[in-house]
Amino acid sequence: MTESHRAGPLFTDLYELTMAASYFAHEVFDTATFSLFIRDVYVTRNYFVAAGLEQVLNELAGFQFSDQDIRYLQSISRFSKHFLDYLRQLHFTGEVNAMPEGTVFFANEPVMEVTAPIVEAQLIETFVLNTIGFQTMIASKAARCFHAAAGRPLIDFSLRRTQGKDAGIKVARSTFIAGFAATSNVLAGKIYGIPISGTMAHSYVSAFDNERDAFFAYADTFPDHSIFLIDTYDSFEGARHAAAVAKEMQKRGHTLIGVRLDSGDMVSLSRKVRKIFDAAGLSDVKIFASSGFDEFKITKVISEGAVIDAFGVGTKVGVSADAPFVDIVYKMVWFKGRDVRKLSPGKVTLAGEKQVFRTSDRNGCYSEDIIGQRDEIIAEGQPLLEKVMENGRLLYPHPQLNMLQERFKENFAALDDGYKSIQDHKAYPVKLSTRLQNLQKESK
Amino acid sequence: MTESHRAGPLFTDLYELTMAASYFAHEVFDTATFSLFIRDVYVTRNYFVAAGLEQVLNELAGFQFSDQDIRYLQSISRFSKHFLDYLRQLHFTGEVNAMPEGTVFFANEPVMEVTAPIVEAQLIETFVLNTIGFQTMIASKAARCFHAAAGRPLIDFSLRRTQGKDAGIKVARSTFIAGFAATSNVLAGKIYGIPISGTMAHSYVSAFDNERDAFFAYADTFPDHSIFLIDTYDSFEGARHAAAVAKEMQKRGHTLIGVRLDSGDMVSLSRKVRKIFDAAGLSDVKIFASSGFDEFKITKVISEGAVIDAFGVGTKVGVSADAPFVDIVYKMVWFKGRDVRKLSPGKVTLAGEKQVFRTSDRNGCYSEDIIGQRDEIIAEGQPLLEKVMENGRLLYPHPQLNMLQERFKENFAALDDGYKSIQDHKAYPVKLSTRLQNLQKESK
Repeated sequence: MTESHRAGPLFTDLYELTMAASYFAHEVFDTATFSLFIRDVYVTRNYFVAAGLEQVLNELAGFQFSDQDIRYLQSISRFSKHFLDYLRQLHFTGEVNAMPEGTVFFANEPVMEVTAPIVEAQLIETFVLNTIGFQTMIASKAARCFHAAAGRPLIDFSLRRTQGKDAGIKVARSTFIAGFAATSNVLAGKIYGIPISGTMAHSYVSAFDNERDAFFAYADTFPDHSIFLIDTYDSFEGARHAAAVAKEMQKRGHTLIGVRLDSGDMVSLSRKVRKIFDAAGLSDVKIFASSGFDEFKITKVISEGAVIDAFGVGTKVGVSADAPFVDIVYKMVWFKGRDVRKLSPGKVTLAGEKQVFRTSDRNGCYSEDIIGQRDEIIAEGQPLLEKVMENGRLLYPHPQLNMLQERFKENFAALDDGYKSIQDHKAYPVKLSTRLQNLQKESK
Repeated sequence: MTESHRAGPLFTDLYELTMAASYFAHEVFDTATFSLFIRDVYVTRNYFVAAGLEQVLNELAGFQFSDQDIRYLQSISRFSKHFLDYLRQLHFTGEVNAMPEGTVFFANEPVMEVTAPIVEAQLIETFVLNTIGFQTMIASKAARCFHAAAGRPLIDFSLRRTQGKDAGIKVARSTFIAGFAATSNVLAGKIYGIPISGTMAHSYVSAFDNERDAFFAYADTFPDHSIFLIDTYDSFEGARHAAAVAKEMQKRGHTLIGVRLDSGDMVSLSRKVRKIFDAAGLSDVKIFASSGFDEFKITKVISEGAVIDAFGVGTKVGVSADAPFVDIVYKMVWFKGRDVRKLSPGKVTLAGEKQVFRTSDRNGCYSEDIIGQRDEIIAEGQPLLEKVMENGRLLYPHPQLNMLQERFKENFAALDDGYKSIQDHKAYPVKLSTRLQNLQKESK
């Protein structure tokens, strides 16, 4: 299955086009390098998980203004015919170095660098920031849940509350990269092959004369895929109804997969419901829980003794509610053969094309990262950015999504648990190489 | 220009399809009514602004499973051939009553009601919640900025930080409905005809040998559309460079529109920059400000005496940072000819098909809303929900976007300023009609 259609070059802030027009008029076609990094961390995010590269590379590989786009730009009477003719034939011809998706990284580290004629590098800025910023934010939030759930499967339930259609699809993708097991989002299942999962809503239970009838009807349709929602009227009564139907299912050679709790005190409810099923000889019936879960609530209910087998995680993760944006920026660091940086108050940028080198201890546990110049050799560190596009062409096919999840799991396992606290800030050591430090003194 | 492509029926949670399959298997084809409303308000949102209806109606009018959709559903081996054949021919045949976009409304009021065979009403749930929830959330946040700016134009600058591609487009649309003047988002300009606006980035200034050269080059390309960004090196120095270039532009018969401040103390900076331009005889040059603005920062800088003519509003509004989701729900209120409601703890729903009646005082100022039954007549109140779709067909063409902005402005002007506080909670009076109250006692 394929990704949904491209955004196209008009997915941009107008100033990218006005700057391009001015560069064109003054024949500024020199090559520039822009560096993408997360600048500030305004809530506890001790680490990030890279995501969104595939969508960026697809957009760059297919970058082209349509006739309709050009007609629209003509209609606003701001651009010369010469410039519009230039846009009409424009493609992305640059180079991209990037951390593969699923890589764990830290604030101030370049997650991607783009080297291209300045007009091309500039026109893609808005899309790059939007795409990698959003997916990385969600993958990072999801990784915190993955840690909190301590091995229990997580299912993305956020589609109804994500910020728009594209967000819904990309949340399913990003949470899967960061270790989620499945999504309720059918379209994401179709596009990305992510396992899909679903139960029933309260309206289903209400649509039958009583709860038992509803459960029987559902079990009849899905004898081997049933999860009953038991809190439409009363969760204990619901559990007893579910147990009775499960016994009937057993007689017919089928198994109730589980029940879902969606309201109330998850700790006491889950324990009592577990007892009801165990007493009925139904210890295989799993308890799924949904209702405002995020890393904080997952941690809380587990620590208080909830007996929950899997979590449906929705809104708060799908919009990254405690941190609904990341301060990700795309800054020019090299132009016309010289290293450049920006000095606006509070917004200093490191000059130069870069590489991030990660060092590990003898157990394979990460010890520190060194940001160096791209052409440096730092023998003890593993370089994290890879050249993925050259002359506007993809150098490799995109990895499968489950490979990205594998990379995340490997990276995450090598990160010391101290950095995985959901409450406490602990800065992972990221330093600059001597060469990069010296370069900052020389650059303007 | 046209709206981007439809999401399609797979933009749904899996349980909508499993419930549909079970309804189909048990021949439950009865008509149901679902009511869409915002349940809880977890931060100060004294009012909401309805948005997103056009996208919902377009989706319903074109609701159809593609062959590819059906093949995907087949591939997950959960659904019968009969059910898939049924889906293949399914269209939306229902009725929709809704508040027009731009209407100011309040928590617990139905903003839309859908009446359709239960399978159809259920399958569209996820899309309806996502679309109206998100656009309404953003329009409501934008209205708070519109109030705070007290007549100064607002420009949407959020595209790079919105949660995905669709969010970027819909933020431009929703903020425009709620009174914004323009957007930096070129694609939204193309799709919706929203005025687009743009200046330059720091990288543009850095790309020239010095700031004056950069300003001259830009003015040369856009002699009548230039806004200079003056904080790349030093805002005062930048203002003096901009003033010098503006004087040169004057000699050639052109006018500098303005300058943009993007960092630092907006109050003192704007005052000093204003003085620099006034002293140079350039009192027409406007001061634009961007940098983390939302309703709170706009209110603060204005109250502290900033001299700012227009605000570029970005991230915090584009993701509704203080309230990045709304607790919007879609609940069955009528089925098989009877009124129904849900009784889960903390999640009670009002039974019955409804109408919202708005009463005003003699000055046209809103006094209170009465939620009644849909067929009630409450002479003193204006009914807010209109029938917009019948038998799956649109009853009217969609209104132009500027008409929606007009409706918002009219509605907003009739709302007492007390409810417009950005800090203090003040509940607008919303009561239930006697008939609706009695109905709650009778319904299960």
